[in-house]
Amino acid sequence: MANVYSAACPSRQALDRLADKWSVLLIGALEAGPQRFGQLRDRIDGVSEKMLAQTLRSLERDGLVNRQGDRPDRTVVYQLTPLGETLRAPVAAIREWAEQYINDIEQAREQADSRQSEDPGRVRE
Amino acid sequence: MANVYSAACPSRQALDRLADKWSVLLIGALEAGPQRFGQLRDRIDGVSEKMLAQTLRSLERDGLVNRQGDRPDRTVVYQLTPLGETLRAPVAAIREWAEQYINDIEQAREQADSRQSEDPGRVRE
Repeated sequence: MANVYSAACPSRQALDRLADKWSVLLIGALEAGPQRFGQLRDRIDGVSEKMLAQTLRSLERDGLVNRQGDRPDRTVVYQLTPLGETLRAPVAAIREWAEQYINDIEQAREQADSRQSEDPGRVRE
Repeated sequence: MANVYSAACPSRQALDRLADKWSVLLIGALEAGPQRFGQLRDRIDGVSEKMLAQTLRSLERDGLVNRQGDRPDRTVVYQLTPLGETLRAPVAAIREWAEQYINDIEQAREQADSRQSEDPGRVRE
């Protein structure tokens, strides 16, 4: 029985895979269909080519992304494998949460930071 | 409009928060209710005390976790805030995916690694 709470369980590694910002963004971008390296780079603002290549390689190794280079126009495209498609649901849940609650988080951070910069002597007045 | 694909959008930071293995495990552990530091450390196999303290602090700063030290027995407990509770759904989706598909991922990795160790001359036979 898989258990991410056990350090020795292989599912902990699968968690690592999903607990990676670039993987989440990349899988989300590939949901639109097969794409070339340059398209992915343009879609994922702020990713370096090195990081993109590295993330694609490890997703490929995990059987989540497929690299196809045999199209008539010889361009290489990346696409989700059937296993990669299973990530749609959790990745969408992560993305939607991030987009929905960011304002609340920013507000909490501002409050926490302003509490911290208060004069400690005033805290218990 | 929040957009995680834009590097400048604050929701990218929220994504960072969720794209962190220890945060995911910690939030999942806190779903069972308020817990002491030692309970969390025991539950999350492999986490160091330093990493646990650090993750708790940043979750607290983000308004996702609450630290309460005013119980009659003076123990400090950590619990999810209402904002933290909103993470139940995406965190469960991540965890369930990791536990459900780890075997497929392991198999894909083994195949990828054995392809790579093959004699390159045999690849196109």
